[in-house]
Amino acid sequence: MFQTDGFRVLDRQECLRLLARVPVGRVVYTRQALPAVLPVNFHLDTDASVLTCTSSASDLVRAVDGTVIAFEADEFDAATRSGWSVVVTGLATVVTDPAEHERLTQTGPRSWMPLRDGVFVRIDSEMVTGRELKGTPGAR
Amino acid sequence: MFQTDGFRVLDRQECLRLLARVPVGRVVYTRQALPAVLPVNFHLDTDASVLTCTSSASDLVRAVDGTVIAFEADEFDAATRSGWSVVVTGLATVVTDPAEHERLTQTGPRSWMPLRDGVFVRIDSEMVTGRELKGTPGAR
Repeated sequence: MFQTDGFRVLDRQECLRLLARVPVGRVVYTRQALPAVLPVNFHLDTDASVLTCTSSASDLVRAVDGTVIAFEADEFDAATRSGWSVVVTGLATVVTDPAEHERLTQTGPRSWMPLRDGVFVRIDSEMVTGRELKGTPGAR
Repeated sequence: MFQTDGFRVLDRQECLRLLARVPVGRVVYTRQALPAVLPVNFHLDTDASVLTCTSSASDLVRAVDGTVIAFEADEFDAATRSGWSVVVTGLATVVTDPAEHERLTQTGPRSWMPLRDGVFVRIDSEMVTGRELKGTPGAR
């Protein structure tokens, strides 16, 4: 579906295919009553949830565990003014089940920073929205 | 200053220099009590505030005008697991002064989408934080 203002709305499957293409997205949450955002590397799990690995002692874990957060990824090309963005909104939880933690240690994302106490944070893909900007060279 | 967990904290001037290098960042705010995020192209103004241009009728304008929001930009290289991210937190306001609107029409950012009713949104750079990930190949 094309919108009048220059972008196309993406369906859930398109969004998930695009998410699987990029290594980094951004966790969007609330910290001390202010909007907060932190880029992380991530994987999509087989159930389309977003997985990231971080320190169990991190501010991020304290702020997001058990709350609804957003996760965003995008790719844009300034030369053609085109690109896409996808936002996943859903409940974030720290993976506490030992068997699941072990599975993710083998197959899940690995932190880009050295961690002694890594935990996996799962963001359920309850709501997945996205849009594609087709490029409007010369537009103001 | 180097942190023990693999990243370096950037000072305000480093953050602003990096912000000036990229065309796209992400507005992070609250919409209907949920965290929300929208990528936008932007300029840094001469007072280091972040400027973007959007439709006066947009959800973004309604949600952010007069509220404290965050704005994030980053660049990462998956091959070397390195990169940087910067977050500006401050009051967002729609530019209503006609002379200022006219100045920004000449020198400010131009929307990548065709707009009939463009307005400029300014995000004051009250708090500017950033970090650099130096790259940790092989880290888990």
